Amino acid sequence: MFDILFRNICVVNPDTACPVQKDVFVGVKDGKIAYIDKLEPQEGSKRVINGANTALIPGLINTHTHAAMSILRGYADDHNLQDWLHNYVFPAEAKFDESCVYTGTQLAIAEMIRTGTVSITDMYMYIPAVAKAAYETGIYANITNAALVFDREGYRMEKDNSYIQMEILRRDWHNTDNGRIKLDSGIHAEYTSFERVWQDFAGYAKQYDLNMQLHLSETKFEHDSCVSKYGKTPARVLCDAGVFDTRTTAAHCVWLTDEDMDILREKGVTVAHNPVSNLKLASGVARVSDMLSRGVNVALGTDGVCSNNSHDMFEEMKLCALLQKGTTLDPKQVNACQALSLATVSGAYAQGREGSLGLIKVGYDASMAMIDLDVPQLTPVHNPLSTIVYSASGRDVCMTMVRGKVLYENGEFTTIDMEKIKSQLYGYVMPKVFGVTK
Amino acid sequence: MFDILFRNICVVNPDTACPVQKDVFVGVKDGKIAYIDKLEPQEGSKRVINGANTALIPGLINTHTHAAMSILRGYADDHNLQDWLHNYVFPAEAKFDESCVYTGTQLAIAEMIRTGTVSITDMYMYIPAVAKAAYETGIYANITNAALVFDREGYRMEKDNSYIQMEILRRDWHNTDNGRIKLDSGIHAEYTSFERVWQDFAGYAKQYDLNMQLHLSETKFEHDSCVSKYGKTPARVLCDAGVFDTRTTAAHCVWLTDEDMDILREKGVTVAHNPVSNLKLASGVARVSDMLSRGVNVALGTDGVCSNNSHDMFEEMKLCALLQKGTTLDPKQVNACQALSLATVSGAYAQGREGSLGLIKVGYDASMAMIDLDVPQLTPVHNPLSTIVYSASGRDVCMTMVRGKVLYENGEFTTIDMEKIKSQLYGYVMPKVFGVTK
Repeated sequence: MFDILFRNICVVNPDTACPVQKDVFVGVKDGKIAYIDKLEPQEGSKRVINGANTALIPGLINTHTHAAMSILRGYADDHNLQDWLHNYVFPAEAKFDESCVYTGTQLAIAEMIRTGTVSITDMYMYIPAVAKAAYETGIYANITNAALVFDREGYRMEKDNSYIQMEILRRDWHNTDNGRIKLDSGIHAEYTSFERVWQDFAGYAKQYDLNMQLHLSETKFEHDSCVSKYGKTPARVLCDAGVFDTRTTAAHCVWLTDEDMDILREKGVTVAHNPVSNLKLASGVARVSDMLSRGVNVALGTDGVCSNNSHDMFEEMKLCALLQKGTTLDPKQVNACQALSLATVSGAYAQGREGSLGLIKVGYDASMAMIDLDVPQLTPVHNPLSTIVYSASGRDVCMTMVRGKVLYENGEFTTIDMEKIKSQLYGYVMPKVFGVTK
Repeated sequence: MFDILFRNICVVNPDTACPVQKDVFVGVKDGKIAYIDKLEPQEGSKRVINGANTALIPGLINTHTHAAMSILRGYADDHNLQDWLHNYVFPAEAKFDESCVYTGTQLAIAEMIRTGTVSITDMYMYIPAVAKAAYETGIYANITNAALVFDREGYRMEKDNSYIQMEILRRDWHNTDNGRIKLDSGIHAEYTSFERVWQDFAGYAKQYDLNMQLHLSETKFEHDSCVSKYGKTPARVLCDAGVFDTRTTAAHCVWLTDEDMDILREKGVTVAHNPVSNLKLASGVARVSDMLSRGVNVALGTDGVCSNNSHDMFEEMKLCALLQKGTTLDPKQVNACQALSLATVSGAYAQGREGSLGLIKVGYDASMAMIDLDVPQLTPVHNPLSTIVYSASGRDVCMTMVRGKVLYENGEFTTIDMEKIKSQLYGYVMPKVFGVTK
């Protein structure tokens, strides 16, 4: 007996051999995908869903975000980076507490689930609150409180707040719900710490077999300053300090050299490409086509919504494909199938979730998004892959499921109480952080 | 007595002095905006709409599209331009008839109205069918069948099919419904015709006081070839032939020189910037920041959806702002207010509709889009302008109105029968053009 059976649905996988399977039956049992076939299964199902005029895609994976920054959505746009950081973002964040982070993360996850995302790689502070929000809402999350240390003399790992937060997460949340919630080790960036910090947090990752998260070569200034300071690129100095020795996700990577790309490929580092954020903060355009042709694993992320201002991964898929075409003047760069692959299969590898996430395949987790194709903006459908990547929006998602559990369907959340989030946001967070009520 | 009164709504105008008016009353009477004030009007209203948690923006203006190409949405992606044109687009379009164009235009307009667009500048064939679709659906439309002539010897204006189509439009549709439907003169592009054609169609525009539409310097190849052939840029040769002597909209303009920009400013030519299409076809990134700083009027367009693949103008607003920031490495380029202005005020000027379209202002046509802000992806709203441009999607539009008439509201069209369009699409168009049924 299946828990859910999709009838006559179109399954879209980022699989170049068979990306589109039309009119198939997809059976879900015990949180896993148990059946995919043209033939109707003999087995019955507790629930049957008519798949006419819809498509199923693997749940999307957002490999770089600061979810709680949803509180700052639209708070500061069109500013210089330093102005943005020092006059807007940092002063507001300084007022955040654990409760703000919990509420902001819930709000972000609501948006993500609404728009087809099932798993996130998150870097923030008060991370036990991030873990609690992720756990309760049902999303997968790899979470770090990345090290950010300027005080060379006073630094001791065991007294560092990021380390203390990570230890709490490791003790209370790591691998909760069969690995749905995971702790990652993390370093904010090369320019916000130094070699001993890198070695310590790399060692911590190795000791407990954790993944690593960091920002890398986001701006030209950061990249060039590192070369001036160390005579090496950020990728090279961090690699030399052992930072890439466990599975690593490096966000941005806008200013990588060719040699940097080779380092990342050799070390199996994933680039979390954030095309919207990189343009909005005027960091530039990452050379994704070059990374892909050199064999680097590239995944997609939204970054925090204060520099986006959306968590909709459909925007990132489309913009990633468009930017590579437009900047290389070659329309064949990053086709629709590749773009979907970056948002699914590549993200699953980045998170250490390959084999369970990223594809709709028997034995994988039943973590998928269902898309309503019967709307004017997606009509007609010549090629469902093209429709998903170039025409669809996260708003066209009509159902998001994680491990067989429906988290969102047709306007309703099953694990999220939006009224409660808004009440907390307008009753507590906005007055505390901005001194305003709605 | 108002026909419609919005209570306590947030009005967002691309007006740098007062872009956001919160909690105001907006009264609509006889198709016009008759009242905007903080105070509740004395007058009653046939219908009252509660504006809590919504925003009103001027209806968006799509200044470059080939609407009927909605039939080809997702039909040909990720190909070289020549392959795309000669092996996909042209063979399919060769099978289009008047009925296909009527159905395709209706479908496109459904998507446009759904996503907040109220007016289009359209270039296509079988234009009486375009006019009929636009008239019936309630959208404003400036329509041309642009001249495309390769046969130098055989050309005679009065025998040219584009001219014949324009004459039919002029006779049967021009200025219908108080100018809602308008004929524009048009030249497809410099490289698809020659001086006599340009002079003829420019003369035709002057004779009947028509606007002009054309494609200009879309690709580097086109721009460079023109310079090789004539020793002048496309902007210069067309200007010299008198093409810019009536109000002109020039689509794309990716490869303009600084001198070209000065020509366009002097002649009052509007650049219809199509950021998604220009990236997708790998044409490049138009220098919009430079155009704006030189005083050129820049508006936005989607182009046909075979090179987009969407008619959602919210995508174009966001991408326009992002691209200028990312390519100039200056995050202050094209702020949210400017982006909304390009999609409204600038488009109204391009179409010759300034004074009636593009702003929410007493005396203007009541042609607006209402946005539902009470969704996770738009929460919280720190600055409604930012929310509209950087976070919203056309899918967040809950009502679109033209001249006081509601054309779309909460999932329902009032002038469009989607079932009839789909029946025509799958019953006639798809079999005829592609030999397939759904």
